[in-house]
Amino acid sequence: MKTFDEITQIVSSALEQLDWSKEPHGLYEPIGYVLSMGGKRIRPAMTLMACNLFTNEFLPAIKPALGIEVFHNFTLLHDDIMDRADIRRGRPTVHKKWNDNTAILSGDVMQIAAYQLIAETPVKYLKPVLDLFSQTAAEICEGQQYDVEFENRAKVEAEEYLEMIRLKTAVLIACALKTGAITGGANENDAEYLYDFGINIGLAFQLKDDLLDVYGDEATFGKKIGGDIMCNKKTYLLINAMQLAEGEIKEKLSGLLQSKTIEPHQKIQSVTSVFNTLGVKEICEEKMSYFYNKAIANLDKVSVSDTKKQELRKLAVKLMYRED
Amino acid sequence: MKTFDEITQIVSSALEQLDWSKEPHGLYEPIGYVLSMGGKRIRPAMTLMACNLFTNEFLPAIKPALGIEVFHNFTLLHDDIMDRADIRRGRPTVHKKWNDNTAILSGDVMQIAAYQLIAETPVKYLKPVLDLFSQTAAEICEGQQYDVEFENRAKVEAEEYLEMIRLKTAVLIACALKTGAITGGANENDAEYLYDFGINIGLAFQLKDDLLDVYGDEATFGKKIGGDIMCNKKTYLLINAMQLAEGEIKEKLSGLLQSKTIEPHQKIQSVTSVFNTLGVKEICEEKMSYFYNKAIANLDKVSVSDTKKQELRKLAVKLMYRED
Repeated sequence: MKTFDEITQIVSSALEQLDWSKEPHGLYEPIGYVLSMGGKRIRPAMTLMACNLFTNEFLPAIKPALGIEVFHNFTLLHDDIMDRADIRRGRPTVHKKWNDNTAILSGDVMQIAAYQLIAETPVKYLKPVLDLFSQTAAEICEGQQYDVEFENRAKVEAEEYLEMIRLKTAVLIACALKTGAITGGANENDAEYLYDFGINIGLAFQLKDDLLDVYGDEATFGKKIGGDIMCNKKTYLLINAMQLAEGEIKEKLSGLLQSKTIEPHQKIQSVTSVFNTLGVKEICEEKMSYFYNKAIANLDKVSVSDTKKQELRKLAVKLMYRED
Repeated sequence: MKTFDEITQIVSSALEQLDWSKEPHGLYEPIGYVLSMGGKRIRPAMTLMACNLFTNEFLPAIKPALGIEVFHNFTLLHDDIMDRADIRRGRPTVHKKWNDNTAILSGDVMQIAAYQLIAETPVKYLKPVLDLFSQTAAEICEGQQYDVEFENRAKVEAEEYLEMIRLKTAVLIACALKTGAITGGANENDAEYLYDFGINIGLAFQLKDDLLDVYGDEATFGKKIGGDIMCNKKTYLLINAMQLAEGEIKEKLSGLLQSKTIEPHQKIQSVTSVFNTLGVKEICEEKMSYFYNKAIANLDKVSVSDTKKQELRKLAVKLMYRED
């Protein structure tokens, strides 16, 4: 069994071999730029690892794995336009470095490029992989739509939030794993267990992200701490806080959310202190553990030896206990 | 053989059966809106007609035909954002009726929906149809990119313009026809002749559009006459005029293109008069006929009876002699 690091190495070299120097440069250059920004390559690595559970080779999974990674980066590109985000991973986003139209059109062709990679799945697995990919891609757009809609809503239920992050984040991880299983020749049950493993680990992963935004270490997290708090993002923490707050605490929280004059540092500190008073950190951690345990139970059911599953298990631990 | 009108009827009913009432409504409603705006449904009709050359049924071609039409409308949706076009077919465009973010995201999911329809191609034809579709989709983005780049260039050669409209317009018509041929079970030669028929008829079609913008009848053309002239669009007419103009005429044309104070009516009349002096209408008509004749020669080579080809031939005539 190859380790996660060895596998991300394979993914990275394969990604680097994709040619974005084609003409018109103005269209393809931004794609190379986005992909060169890095990222952990977790999704394509998962595709290869899942494939590797059922066969000794990675080859049938590589192209669809790259398709999933290209698609993931496409969603970041278009989301950054919609969110007016100027910086990603320390570098200017495409719509900032070029312009909105370039970001729209390069994104469009990037989505097509993702499909072209998916289309290189071995032909006997093409139809199920393609259908899963399209369904997932549509769900991710649905998740993004809910995310945008929630911003403008006064109240979002915890369950609605979990469904939104399932669509926006978890389904692509699940798709990555199931695609690997399919191309590895897994039976339908095992492919489905890996899908469910992905959904649950994806939900846990996003809750971890919500936690890191408030309780993470800025030096290792890579993003500014408190970014979600500053833009009143309705994360699992804030949704639960709004649900639980009563009396004075409720007024304090409303005031913090509505204030347009409060200093960033002060707002982050005060909202965090409300979170602490209400114990929403623990609520979030508990929910995260709940999904993590469900994920592991799904992985346990996959009918291959424990030795083979070890790397995926280690990756799950790594994602849960990460500090970045 | 069914007539073109009967076939567009089949296409329209099939299109109407697609369900855009799914949740989240904010994401899917704009797709239904764009598709309800109408259009001639030429591309999907061509897919069905091409299929019908080789088999008596349309069934294997219907889903990919719809995929092509959905994709075409997706490109209009995103192009309208980039062009800041507020009106299409007399109704507000999506980014105007909703907003830019909705137009971006609904467009993204519309592209996925197109792929989902393509994926319903009978499985034995799936791979070639999918590959052709992706290649075509990427080329259309390339064409749009060149179109945008040409706007900011002082000089565009006639050959560059023809290559741009090949990518932006002709390849999708060619793809529609070849997709029909493939799903109808045509041999490779016939599929390729139909592709080439599509390229040439597509080029002729776009040159006809350039002509109609200047020399069309406003009542039947549906768009305002002179729209291209007003925005200095480098059409085949203007490119040739810029190439041929010398001395006084050259100065007159430059002045008209640069003037920011000239009245619309006056500009359209004066530029048209320059076109007439230089004979660029005839140059454009000649080029259009050249492509039209090449198209017909390609259609002639397709190894089915003339009777079967009659409807496509009639459609070609109709597209060339249309006044709208």
